[in-house]
Amino acid sequence: MRVPLRLLPASGHFPLLLLSFQLIPTSAFSLHALPSRLSRERGTHLRTATETAPVVPVMGSTEEGKLAYSYIEEHDVAKQSILDKYEGFVFDMDGVLWEGATLIPKARETVEYLMHAGKKVFFVTNNSSATRKQYIAKLKKLGYPELKPEVIYCAAAAVAKYMEHIGYKGKVFVLGGEGLREELSAVDGLEILPKDYWEASKQFPTPLEMANEEIDFDAKCVVMGFDQYFNYWKLGYATRLLTGNPDCLFIISNKDKLFPCGGGKRLPGTGAFIEALEMATSRRGHIVAKPGPFIIDDICESFSIPRESLCMIGDNLHTDIDFAISNGIGACMVETGVSQRDQIGRDRNPVPHFVLPTVAVLLAPSFESRL
Amino acid sequence: MRVPLRLLPASGHFPLLLLSFQLIPTSAFSLHALPSRLSRERGTHLRTATETAPVVPVMGSTEEGKLAYSYIEEHDVAKQSILDKYEGFVFDMDGVLWEGATLIPKARETVEYLMHAGKKVFFVTNNSSATRKQYIAKLKKLGYPELKPEVIYCAAAAVAKYMEHIGYKGKVFVLGGEGLREELSAVDGLEILPKDYWEASKQFPTPLEMANEEIDFDAKCVVMGFDQYFNYWKLGYATRLLTGNPDCLFIISNKDKLFPCGGGKRLPGTGAFIEALEMATSRRGHIVAKPGPFIIDDICESFSIPRESLCMIGDNLHTDIDFAISNGIGACMVETGVSQRDQIGRDRNPVPHFVLPTVAVLLAPSFESRL
Repeated sequence: MRVPLRLLPASGHFPLLLLSFQLIPTSAFSLHALPSRLSRERGTHLRTATETAPVVPVMGSTEEGKLAYSYIEEHDVAKQSILDKYEGFVFDMDGVLWEGATLIPKARETVEYLMHAGKKVFFVTNNSSATRKQYIAKLKKLGYPELKPEVIYCAAAAVAKYMEHIGYKGKVFVLGGEGLREELSAVDGLEILPKDYWEASKQFPTPLEMANEEIDFDAKCVVMGFDQYFNYWKLGYATRLLTGNPDCLFIISNKDKLFPCGGGKRLPGTGAFIEALEMATSRRGHIVAKPGPFIIDDICESFSIPRESLCMIGDNLHTDIDFAISNGIGACMVETGVSQRDQIGRDRNPVPHFVLPTVAVLLAPSFESRL
Repeated sequence: MRVPLRLLPASGHFPLLLLSFQLIPTSAFSLHALPSRLSRERGTHLRTATETAPVVPVMGSTEEGKLAYSYIEEHDVAKQSILDKYEGFVFDMDGVLWEGATLIPKARETVEYLMHAGKKVFFVTNNSSATRKQYIAKLKKLGYPELKPEVIYCAAAAVAKYMEHIGYKGKVFVLGGEGLREELSAVDGLEILPKDYWEASKQFPTPLEMANEEIDFDAKCVVMGFDQYFNYWKLGYATRLLTGNPDCLFIISNKDKLFPCGGGKRLPGTGAFIEALEMATSRRGHIVAKPGPFIIDDICESFSIPRESLCMIGDNLHTDIDFAISNGIGACMVETGVSQRDQIGRDRNPVPHFVLPTVAVLLAPSFESRL
């Protein structure tokens, strides 16, 4: 059964809230209020996550509207309103399509269904170790149709696009994996330092040795992503560049604390290394990947999609949901990755518009995969 | 000329302030007020740094007393009051006795003079890479008399003493230099992991490889100091220990952002690495060396020195001066190292009781070195 709620105008006024109740039974939603602030009975007030965020018509908003999200399970008819509302879907990968080495059931079919339904889909990840080419190959191996590089916003590619965007030319000191270095190498006019990254990775200097290291101050840009070969030589070199020249650009892919690897194990993410460099330099890097604004700006411009017609689907409150909310697009959290429902709104965590147990909630039961 | 000011009782009352003016001309001090808060004329109000800190009799204190320090130059008679007040002096080394590879002129003679005058001297450093034995040898080579290990509180030794103090026995996972590992190895009942540190330093796993790494959860303690061989394997191992077992102890030597290496160059200190581990684990390590309380507690207990008779001489507001202020001992900043006078009190930086251009200000002109 599909209720034609999309005909309702989006509005924050209270009368509309009552109207929406006449059309949709409250049982179609699970409204999850935050315990500390929302004491009214569950289901009697439906609220949007923020006033500025796109409003799905079935929900009203109030002054207290920042405190709740809609929890949508498999058989909720409300899921149709998400599909009607958005023209484009931006998928996080780790924690949404797979977690560690485990595939999320029916994630592939869901993406295929959305594409089949004429939606534009994008794939965004803060993993800066791999290139677009590698992600296309990985997705194909997992059964996805062959995707074009333009729809893959892996952190390495996003940083490379950003460097093109700002028009920086010349030497760049890069701390990061092969993916980041490869994508940056393809940018016209960039010269990547250090030239022999593997050699640099095997240096173990003392601080006093680093003080005597000759630094190439022609490099007026430091770029940092995840680096499994992180060491004191690189940290010291970047620190001397960034503190020796206040105009040196400081660009980082992302600041994720943790690397999603399944089984509840916590492993340090890019953010841990970047924190070390930020602490040593007393500077803050400019974040290009989630939750920075660049990727959304680029998608909206390059694909002519209005901001309010885009929805992020992610598992991490700090990267995905913050990314969506702060960039004015729809924010949908799935429960198959890093963040848990009880963390929403706590300790200044952002509040998504929707929470789904898994991305597969969006799949139409009748859809038959063509793959 | 020596004015017998030590006969005055220490007090925060205003009448005493007037009395002290009768005895010492204000020109004997340079009072450096913080521009944002203290607008009165320089030298007309003398204030102590904190209400709880030991008061040198020549200074009065007021409600606004947290805002200023006494700047004492070579010929100020006020320096005698410091010598009279304190029975013990705790010297930071990098930035006080030397900076990088450069010796601070007359620092050696000053230390010798204080010992000759019957003061107890201690040497404290947050450098966790070297052992007490190595510091004794270094100081001897620089012309200092041969010191006993008990007066050397290098971070490695302080952490080892702390482990004895808490009575921990069993396996300890150590990220740190040889100095830290050597001092810890000498502690009865500790088994140091990883067994082959150099082998561990040459591991460059991906996060997914770290997720499959077998972790020895019998290690219920992680100790971290400066590690020039820091890598993802160690960071990932420590993260899994600390997050996999909430009772696992997390002990750190110190959190200095920067390593003093002279010439205005900034190089990352222990704190940069520790920040990475703290971010990945969402836990805070227990600081043993400066500015933690352990070293001062241990000096006061082991040498029967009242807290108010001890004075710290250091160059770093975040470690030395915070250390002194928060542990209720005298705080004397020298200008030969990390911190500058204009940083005092800014951005929540602590305020020392005294600032000296160099430690050599304390040297009596008449003193002849016996070395």
